Amino acid sequence: MTELSIGILGGTGDQGKGLAHRFAQAGHPVLIGSRNAQRAQEAADSIGLGARGAENAVVAAEADIVIVAVPWDGHKELLISLREPLAGKIVIDCVNPLGFDKQGAYALPVEEGSAAQQAAAVLPDSRVVAAFHHVSAVLLLDPAVEKVDLDVLVLGDDREATDTVQALAAVIPGVRGVYGGRLRNAHQVEAFTANLISINRRYKAHAGLRVTDV
Amino acid sequence: MTELSIGILGGTGDQGKGLAHRFAQAGHPVLIGSRNAQRAQEAADSIGLGARGAENAVVAAEADIVIVAVPWDGHKELLISLREPLAGKIVIDCVNPLGFDKQGAYALPVEEGSAAQQAAAVLPDSRVVAAFHHVSAVLLLDPAVEKVDLDVLVLGDDREATDTVQALAAVIPGVRGVYGGRLRNAHQVEAFTANLISINRRYKAHAGLRVTDV
Repeated sequence: MTELSIGILGGTGDQGKGLAHRFAQAGHPVLIGSRNAQRAQEAADSIGLGARGAENAVVAAEADIVIVAVPWDGHKELLISLREPLAGKIVIDCVNPLGFDKQGAYALPVEEGSAAQQAAAVLPDSRVVAAFHHVSAVLLLDPAVEKVDLDVLVLGDDREATDTVQALAAVIPGVRGVYGGRLRNAHQVEAFTANLISINRRYKAHAGLRVTDV
Repeated sequence: MTELSIGILGGTGDQGKGLAHRFAQAGHPVLIGSRNAQRAQEAADSIGLGARGAENAVVAAEADIVIVAVPWDGHKELLISLREPLAGKIVIDCVNPLGFDKQGAYALPVEEGSAAQQAAAVLPDSRVVAAFHHVSAVLLLDPAVEKVDLDVLVLGDDREATDTVQALAAVIPGVRGVYGGRLRNAHQVEAFTANLISINRRYKAHAGLRVTDV
């Protein structure tokens, strides 16, 4: 499947850049998207391996599979603006709607239930899958980390699409893509990132999840 | 800590009986609670190892640590009725507010945010901890399963209480008790049980979680 090109909206952030780095290493053509084409190109240059940068709309139009890694603030508006170029494509939402205060992170309420369900609501012609919520940007970006020790939970209502995304997750060394349920159960997977942040703080770790007996 | 007695409200259900079985095996005095004292005694007899059965109110009064393993329907009313006997005690809520339909399990909305936060709201004088949501009753009850392969996420705002519950989880062979955040982040841990049910169905497994890098 390495012939599939991967576009990453918001690819200049740590999570997006970390994923771009790993997919480029695995041989996928990678397109970094940003509001600002120059910042996108700078991020692509920092990754190398043939990665290219462009405005989000160009990436949405060109890439075979598109990952949404933008901040929660602005998520809905961006996707509404990209409805046409994203039609027919697998769109992977990895956004975690979180708030932060002195006691750490907590899940924000989302009218549609979750970021992924919001994406599905505003992109009715796309095949929305939720995945890659719990990956540690620090580990993805660290060239010394050869294997990333976690399972990526992949949620969606389109079996072919979730199968494809599970296979995509598995190109990252150490990672498995594990089916995690329908899109209506995405909220708790997104929100669990708040718990991982608490765990990281308590144990000074870069915690991830493994699913046992699978 | 095996001198601490463990009471289990709703201990005649599979989850409660499974936990009772493992704690009794580890040497804890175990008290099974039920609305019906006779059914409680029958469950206790099926466990053996000195387990005793009684009405929920008697168990709430006698046990050192009380686990709430009742159905979500009736959770609030039962805890309100036990406010006095539960005062000052560690109360471990392991209830998962879930609905079921043809597409499987899904998380129910909870006014207080989560079952554990509801318990904390109606038991202001107790030390409420959320834990044991993801344990498989099948594995706990199977004498052939010597080690249970999962981490129990322990959530709460009282460090001494969460430390105690982490230690209690660890008496089950194979299990670790891992701090999982504050009570305000309990909803997604409870709701994630719906995802585990989806995973179990897809993979024909008894799935659990392990936290990596901890």
